[in-house]
Amino acid sequence: MSQFKYELIKEDKYTHARLGRICTPHGIIETPIFMPVGTQATVKAMTPEELKEIGAQIILSNTYHLYLRPGHNLVKKAGGLHSFMHWDRPILTDSGGFQVFSQANLREISEDGVYFKSYLDGSRHFIGPEKAMEIENALGADIIMCFDECTPYPAEKEYVRKSSDMTINWAKRCKSSNQRPDDQALFGILQGGLYKDIRIENAKRMVDLDFPGYSIGGLSVGEPKDIMLDTLANVEEYIPKNKPRYLMGVGSPDLLIEGAIRGVDMFDCVLPTRIARNGSVFTSHGKLVVRNAKYAQDFSPLDSECDCYVCRNYTRAYIRHLFNAGEILAARLASYHNLYFLIKLMSRMREAIKTDSLLDFRKEFFAKYGYQL
Amino acid sequence: MSQFKYELIKEDKYTHARLGRICTPHGIIETPIFMPVGTQATVKAMTPEELKEIGAQIILSNTYHLYLRPGHNLVKKAGGLHSFMHWDRPILTDSGGFQVFSQANLREISEDGVYFKSYLDGSRHFIGPEKAMEIENALGADIIMCFDECTPYPAEKEYVRKSSDMTINWAKRCKSSNQRPDDQALFGILQGGLYKDIRIENAKRMVDLDFPGYSIGGLSVGEPKDIMLDTLANVEEYIPKNKPRYLMGVGSPDLLIEGAIRGVDMFDCVLPTRIARNGSVFTSHGKLVVRNAKYAQDFSPLDSECDCYVCRNYTRAYIRHLFNAGEILAARLASYHNLYFLIKLMSRMREAIKTDSLLDFRKEFFAKYGYQL
Repeated sequence: MSQFKYELIKEDKYTHARLGRICTPHGIIETPIFMPVGTQATVKAMTPEELKEIGAQIILSNTYHLYLRPGHNLVKKAGGLHSFMHWDRPILTDSGGFQVFSQANLREISEDGVYFKSYLDGSRHFIGPEKAMEIENALGADIIMCFDECTPYPAEKEYVRKSSDMTINWAKRCKSSNQRPDDQALFGILQGGLYKDIRIENAKRMVDLDFPGYSIGGLSVGEPKDIMLDTLANVEEYIPKNKPRYLMGVGSPDLLIEGAIRGVDMFDCVLPTRIARNGSVFTSHGKLVVRNAKYAQDFSPLDSECDCYVCRNYTRAYIRHLFNAGEILAARLASYHNLYFLIKLMSRMREAIKTDSLLDFRKEFFAKYGYQL
Repeated sequence: MSQFKYELIKEDKYTHARLGRICTPHGIIETPIFMPVGTQATVKAMTPEELKEIGAQIILSNTYHLYLRPGHNLVKKAGGLHSFMHWDRPILTDSGGFQVFSQANLREISEDGVYFKSYLDGSRHFIGPEKAMEIENALGADIIMCFDECTPYPAEKEYVRKSSDMTINWAKRCKSSNQRPDDQALFGILQGGLYKDIRIENAKRMVDLDFPGYSIGGLSVGEPKDIMLDTLANVEEYIPKNKPRYLMGVGSPDLLIEGAIRGVDMFDCVLPTRIARNGSVFTSHGKLVVRNAKYAQDFSPLDSECDCYVCRNYTRAYIRHLFNAGEILAARLASYHNLYFLIKLMSRMREAIKTDSLLDFRKEFFAKYGYQL
């Protein structure tokens, strides 16, 4: 029997936001939640202990990258991904589909799957639904994804229709080839581009396949924000309330709030760690480029309202110096702070849902952060 | 009155090794000790908390680098180096002399000091004894160094004689221009190349100037190991027993042991963190290049006899993967382990001195490590 369970604790009175709890073989996840991304079996610049310190409940890792390096069989031999990377809390793996398709020049697609060339050495590889399951089963994450085509933006309607049909067929094949349904919960991925009718038909058919959770794919791929949020809202009502919903690739503070308001339970994105390594950090008053010369003599913390390890102990002047000097500690401190900021944001949102005050929370957060509602 | 105090606790029965204790404004240092190097106000890839976790009692930082970037006045404004970098234990700064002189093509030397060009932007700068003291006083380390010329290897006898005379004159000027003798203990640096007579004369004259401690400079600059150790032994007997001795730039396990046996109390070197970033680690059985393909499926720790955080939680296979994938965590884990290895080595040496068993310790360590005695 499946060790995976989603429990809907409470719905917000004024929005579609939900307070929930996901049980997995490696522990419980309070939702809505942001998942830090550990592409190559490490959340860049962070240790697992630091991730726990900032309250990370689950991390995401990438099937495509781990398949190519170090190889899923090596990870399996190490006792699975948890053991390999020394992380004993839940892990989610994607299916590799997104990466395989986003390397547009290197692939051949058929109903079987996708042939592609390795970005590491040019060698030829194939991943289809069955292979994706073989890899994900070897990695052993608590939550795994069906192999899908993430339709690009923009795309012709006819292309999107065919592509989302293929994603449905692949989802069926993934479901029947998942060898570890008891300890690896397989999510279906909703596609359909930005065409409302295709999205709805696709969602209905995917829900008919009865997965333990649903991912919303094909968004956050370059489309305008309002279209993205409309599409999300259209799809959301077709997902059963007793199943968790995961909006893939979203991680900016505004979209985490807007997504939760539209019923999303799980988010992931490389954004916080990627911008951190470039010297940008989130603050209560908006994004700040700490490498800028104007912070050279600024002895205040990155965010004076933040209580994280970095903000308690380091100044903007020092962190700017570290970036200027090319020091590893710069990336460490900025990554730590950015992840803490998003994880704390989600925890504040969960509190707000408890008291039906999420809309007030959004208003206050946006006013301070500098967003327009 | 000076807050600096050295206490000789015990001398080894069979060697010149000494057990001691140094009191500074930022705490006590048990000697012999290895000091991790934090060139640019950070020990590369490490946080101060991690340095404490591995037992680092004091770190070294570089005057030359901090003068050029971010500038000593900025550090002073931040409340000094301890506050700037969030490290509340003792710090030692060098004088900048070593770096100024090792950039041979960019300098003009006179009795006043040295004109040189910044490696960052080519701008022209001057450091002499008084300027070095101004910078070191602004940084505010607990132990500071006189401005000296580190004579290169090889060097003509006449050059070395003149250079070590100049270093003596500079030491006098440093002593009289140190504005913070109470909370910044100024060490004299012994020079004299590899010429025994110059070394001895230089040591006598430097000791006559009565510094609270003495550094042994001009060694570990490319000369054969036996010549270095002989020179060290020749000089050591001229340093009063009630003063600490610091052998500059030495940090390989064999030389830490040989140095302590010859009466050295303090060591520093970038070696452990530098080789770590290149994928090399110390182990009880010798150095190991963990990036090598032969460790791809090696699920044992870096050093099975080590009890550090890294060895308790990660495998060679995982760390090799991190290096292959260019992940920051690779440098973090290898640096952590290498520093722990040397700091633990010093602590074991202190234990051995207590029981007069340092020679036995050396024999056992070398046999396992693969050194020839």
